[in-house]
This record gives sequence, structure tokens and C-alpha cells, in this order.
Amino acid sequence: MLYEQIGEEVRQYIDQLTKPRGSLGKLEELAIEIAKMTGERFPRVTPPGVLVFAADHGVAKEGVSAYPQEVTAQMVLNFVRGGAAINVFSKQIGAMFAVVDVGVAVDIHEENVINEKVAYGTNNFAYKQAMAKEEAEQAVQAGYRQANAMIDRGIRCLIVGEMGIGNTTTASALLAAMSGRSVAELVGRGTGIHDEMFKHKQRVIERALMLHQPNPSDPIDLLTKIGGFEIAAMAGAMMAAAERRVPILLDGFICTVAALIAERLDERVVHYMIAGHRSQEPGHRIALELLNKEPLLDLRMRLGEGSGAVVAFPIVNMALAMLHMATFSSANVSTGSDHHE
Amino acid sequence: MLYEQIGEEVRQYIDQLTKPRGSLGKLEELAIEIAKMTGERFPRVTPPGVLVFAADHGVAKEGVSAYPQEVTAQMVLNFVRGGAAINVFSKQIGAMFAVVDVGVAVDIHEENVINEKVAYGTNNFAYKQAMAKEEAEQAVQAGYRQANAMIDRGIRCLIVGEMGIGNTTTASALLAAMSGRSVAELVGRGTGIHDEMFKHKQRVIERALMLHQPNPSDPIDLLTKIGGFEIAAMAGAMMAAAERRVPILLDGFICTVAALIAERLDERVVHYMIAGHRSQEPGHRIALELLNKEPLLDLRMRLGEGSGAVVAFPIVNMALAMLHMATFSSANVSTGSDHHE
Repeated sequence: MLYEQIGEEVRQYIDQLTKPRGSLGKLEELAIEIAKMTGERFPRVTPPGVLVFAADHGVAKEGVSAYPQEVTAQMVLNFVRGGAAINVFSKQIGAMFAVVDVGVAVDIHEENVINEKVAYGTNNFAYKQAMAKEEAEQAVQAGYRQANAMIDRGIRCLIVGEMGIGNTTTASALLAAMSGRSVAELVGRGTGIHDEMFKHKQRVIERALMLHQPNPSDPIDLLTKIGGFEIAAMAGAMMAAAERRVPILLDGFICTVAALIAERLDERVVHYMIAGHRSQEPGHRIALELLNKEPLLDLRMRLGEGSGAVVAFPIVNMALAMLHMATFSSANVSTGSDHHE
Repeated sequence: MLYEQIGEEVRQYIDQLTKPRGSLGKLEELAIEIAKMTGERFPRVTPPGVLVFAADHGVAKEGVSAYPQEVTAQMVLNFVRGGAAINVFSKQIGAMFAVVDVGVAVDIHEENVINEKVAYGTNNFAYKQAMAKEEAEQAVQAGYRQANAMIDRGIRCLIVGEMGIGNTTTASALLAAMSGRSVAELVGRGTGIHDEMFKHKQRVIERALMLHQPNPSDPIDLLTKIGGFEIAAMAGAMMAAAERRVPILLDGFICTVAALIAERLDERVVHYMIAGHRSQEPGHRIALELLNKEPLLDLRMRLGEGSGAVVAFPIVNMALAMLHMATFSSANVSTGSDHHE
């Protein structure tokens, strides 16, 4: 599926550029990877697109987040008014930006929010399954459709973000199921909760996994039993990007769990993913290991929304700018002895 | 010297922005640091300026580099024609760019190269001192003057780069003298040399340090005995930036050694430095430790020219963009329980 031959040509071309061999480290690897993905010798990733999916989680009723559920809808409005971190960062990289309501608990009266609402939030997975199987499929399709729409508008790199109070609990439950690791090992403090809430969050997840026994290799079963709508939509968006050969720059914990769901929907999707940053959320390390990806940045961020990926984007762009350097022969620069080893 | 009060105000303001407290990690710290440096509540670092100093090193005659000395001058021409890594990266960040000849071994016939030539390369420090004391001072002043000129033209962040075949040997010798660490511990393979050359490089440095016995706390003595002209100029440029309250974004090994020289010229300069990336050169870790700075990036780069700093620049810019987010009250977003702990 990847253009291996073009990747090899780009690898050889990079060794002709006016710099010591291998001296641009990860940037060289990125340029080769993206050439393989796109089939282009001089690929570009501009303009990038940022697609933020918002949805609510019934499990928020368990008191697993530091923020009340109403914050999901409030932040959606903040996104369309340009006040959130993802907005100011997206502006810096010249990204197309869109917010999609796939399952916020209240009606959003704002024409700039794309309406793909599947339901008014998921059910509380502590007691019942999060959604119907058809709803899980519908949410995946919503993401797939919206990513395709953005690719039709010309984006060359896809960043998917999320907003959903309680979604680190959902993502932790999904990851525990998929990885087989203990909940204690991978549950984090989300966006900042205290010790008691932290232990409670672990217990909620452990009990829910015993109750539902999701099939770790069946992505629709995982989404149906645990949620959430935005995670399903993110996975669907990634499938669309991979189909269209558009590189996907991953954000943090929730996004990487969605990437693992996407992998279970179609394992080829993983070839189009680049890990943007390492989140402070402890489960992120495990999710990245499962995906076999090494992130570009580690800035102790843990915000979500797609913010870590957007901060990492300029590095990807630099990697491709590198291909426009002069070669030793075009610039009349003597090659070093490392070229004759 | 730093505006501590303004830094404190910015710290408190960041906690009002629509995101969980501390969730932007290093970006939050950067914004506070730059506010302290500049005295501005909403500082900016655009446009940045990239100032590349080129010079030759007599020690290159010892066969310590994979490249012949003529590459210094060839790369200077590559810089003014826009073909080097630093060019394509600088363009991505909209940087002002200038190349200064402070000591290339041949005449550079190119009007776009700023001529501040102190001498035609340093003497081979394996046998004699690299330069006269007056020449060391002259090179520092050249850097100081050129950085001031660029600041006069409006740059808000200074990146200093270098080109000089053999300069990892010079920088390693300087660092061994300043750190007191063994040469074996900090000497690297420069831009890619084989085992035998690598051991030879160590021996050259060890013998030279025994011969010259430079005073580790006297920067002019260090520069005089070991070199080089571009390292002196970089240190002078950093002094100018600090005086003008312009943040300095550090590149890799050579640049960080120049930063240690600058610190010995005036210890306050360190307050204006941000470490851009961690180089593959083993001595860089030691140099950063001495400077007490943690780099933003670790992409296995080892090119020099200022390239690592330029790749890191967008992160600094993002940190300041963060300050333009909405606050909880302006966006009508409920604050979380972490605000009431």
C-alpha cells in the first residue's frame, strides 16, 4: 500500500543534500515516511486540517472528571469563537479548522458547528452499554464523511482533536481492554483530579470491563460497550485520510486510543500515522507502544483538542522543506569522507 | 535584571485561560520566561533573526573532520544562495537571515556575505595559541555589532548559527577546559568520522589542553588559546541580545559552548537563553547541564548552522500564541474543581 520505491529514492536523494549524512535525524525519516505515504518525491503537508469532534460521556455522572459535563458544550462554543488553545495554535500553522458535534448532551445553537449528532451523549458505561451498535457505526461514518469533506477542500495533512468531559475515562477503559494491561497502570488523572477521584476512576473502569467483557479485537464491540461518539468519529476520520493517502498527525492519549480503534477497523491505516507528541497521561505511553510509534515532541502537555499535534506540525513541515535544499553537486560543495566509507 | 513581577502576572493570567491548569506544560513555562525577559505581558518573538558566523580552524589540519577545510567557504556561498538546511528552515519561520565571515581561510567574493574577517582562520591550537588576545576581543565585538544591527532591523528573537570545518574539535576542547570533564567523555564524532579519526581527535585535544593550560573562568583566555572566531562572535551576539532584552534560542553543541563563553563574559546573558534542541553530539548534554537548560526538542539532529534552533522556533511562537486564548470568564466556561483545590 505504501510507495516503498519512492521512499527509497527519497532516502538516496537526502544523502545528496548539502549536509552530513543522517545529520537531520528524525526529519530525514519523516520525509521518507511521507514520501512513501503520498507517493510524491517532494510532498507537502500544507494546508493542514484540524477536525475536532465533540461528544458527551454518560460516565461523567460517576464524578470522574474535574469539570462538569456542561463544559463540553461551552468549549464547543469557545472553539467556534476562536478562544481555545486549538484555535490559537491552528491559526499559527494556517490550518483549516472545523468542529463537529457527534454527540454533545445538549443542542448546540451555532451554525458554525457541523451537526453530526448521533445521540445526546453516551449511556453511563458503568451500568449499561454506551450506545447501540448502529450508533457506533454511524459515528465512525460521520468522522469518515467529515474528513473526506476536508480533504476535498484541499488539506494535505489531517489532525483530529476531541472535546468530551469524561473522555479520558472512556479512552482508559478502551485501552485497558485492548492492551490487557491493568487499569491502575494506565489510568491517569485526566485534566487534573485529586487522589480519591483518581482511585474511584480506576474502580469504575475495572467494574465496567468486568460487566461488559468487550472483545478487544472488535472495534465496534469496544465502541458500543464503552464509547464514545467522538472516539468513533476520530477513527473514521483516520480511515478516510489513509484511503486518500493524506498523512495523519496524531495528538495525545484520546487520539492515540482512537488510532488503535482505527487500526482494528483497518490495519493499513497505521501506515499513514505520525505520532505528534507524548502526553503526560500515563496510558499514552502504552497506547504509543501498541501502535509502535515514537512521538516528535515531549513538552509535558495534556490538553487534548488536537493541540499537541498542531504544536508538532511545524516539525513535519520542516522535514519536507529539507527536500528543497541544494545538493553537493548543484552547490559545488565537496563531499566528506563519510561518503566514501 | 529579569521582570519577575511581570512573569508572576503572566503566570496567574495563564491559569485563567480556557484549559486545565498546567496542561500546556513547557509552553506555559516558556511564555512566563519570555515575559520575564522582555517585560511584556503579551510578548512576541516574530520576526526572528538568524545570524550565521563562519570561520576556519587551524586544527582542521590535524585531520579531525570528515570534510576538507574548503567546505567552510563553499557552504558560505551555499548560505547566500539559499541552498543550505538553515536557509530552507529559516524561510519556514519567516526569519531575517545573514551570514558573517569572521575568519574564513579564503577571501569570500560575495557581496551578500557580511565581512567582519578577523584573520584567515585560527592557528592550529595543537601547536600554538589559536589567535591573539586582541583578535578574540575583535571577534566578540563583531558578533556584538552584527546582532545589534539585526535587532535594530526589528528581530524579536535571536538565533546564532555557525559554519567552520573542525569546530566541533574546538568546541570540545573549550568544553573540556570549562567543565573539567575528561575529553573521552565529551568528544563526539563531529559530522561523521570513523573510529581512528575519533581517537586521534581526542588525543589532539588532550595534548593541546596540556600545552596551553587555559584558565577555565577566563573567556578571552579560552578563545585566545583554543578559538574560534565564530564561537567568539556567537558569544558577542548573545551579549547584545541579552542587553536589548531579546530572547536567544540556542542551537546545538557549538552554540551551547559559545553560550558558556558568553556566560563567562557576563553571567546575566544566561537569563535570556532558551535551549532549542538536544544534539546527538555527546558533549552537548554536558554543556546544557553546565548552563542548566532543558532543550525543547530531541530529534537526533547534529547539523549545526543554527538548524536545531530554527526547527524549535515554532514551539516558542506557539507558547506566546497561547496567551491570546480566551479566559474562563470571557468565554463563559465553567472552571473545574482543580481551581478550588
